[in-house]
Amino acid sequence: MERIPILKMGSFLLVTIQVDLYDRLALNLESDLINMVSKTGARGVLIDISAVSIVDSFMGRILGNIASMSRIMDAETVVVGMQPAVAITLVELGLTLQGVYTALDVEKGMELLQKKIDLYAPQSEDEEEQSPDDYTD
Amino acid sequence: MERIPILKMGSFLLVTIQVDLYDRLALNLESDLINMVSKTGARGVLIDISAVSIVDSFMGRILGNIASMSRIMDAETVVVGMQPAVAITLVELGLTLQGVYTALDVEKGMELLQKKIDLYAPQSEDEEEQSPDDYTD
Repeated sequence: MERIPILKMGSFLLVTIQVDLYDRLALNLESDLINMVSKTGARGVLIDISAVSIVDSFMGRILGNIASMSRIMDAETVVVGMQPAVAITLVELGLTLQGVYTALDVEKGMELLQKKIDLYAPQSEDEEEQSPDDYTD
Repeated sequence: MERIPILKMGSFLLVTIQVDLYDRLALNLESDLINMVSKTGARGVLIDISAVSIVDSFMGRILGNIASMSRIMDAETVVVGMQPAVAITLVELGLTLQGVYTALDVEKGMELLQKKIDLYAPQSEDEEEQSPDDYTD
């Protein structure tokens, strides 16, 4: 199976990553997602990685890429369901997933996306408030 | 990755099947789903098989099992995103997916589930109306 299915739910797209993202699969996912955002006018992308137990810099980069591309297409990206061990590994690898919002599960991710969409409707760019820099006081 | 993630969305559970369901994975999925239905009190199960291009009698049986088990736990099952080729194969194999409702995509599946839940709330058992027998006049 060469493609990861993208599910449309209202104004959001949902992707569940269950397999290892090797090169072509990741590139397909990127282009499929951006095409879906363009085609459906989705305002948010939810990426569930609860089945991912091993993360590397490639995976981190792909998630960052998707978030950046989606943002250009006016959609926010939220990564949900990250396992604690994955979070530990990410930090140890020095990957902070810049520009990617995270939430504990799909429901919380949807709430967050809804808030982001409502928030960014009037003003334009105010992304610092939930970035990791917040906690370096 | 030994388990297929089950996402909770409101009163529904969503499963996306992206890999071949070999024996243990299918059994894990069955037990995980039933446990989740029990734990969350979910009223519906959505199974997305849009990434499944090859279906056999085993897969058909697993889907039927999940639907039967869920029904005992008071949850309806809807299979969504079936590829046309898969539908053709199922019929050619003589598998009618008894007791399993189908819908074109996740959104339509959710609508159907919502209707089923509303419908079965007052009365008790009236499952014939959407069964394949309907068309044998």
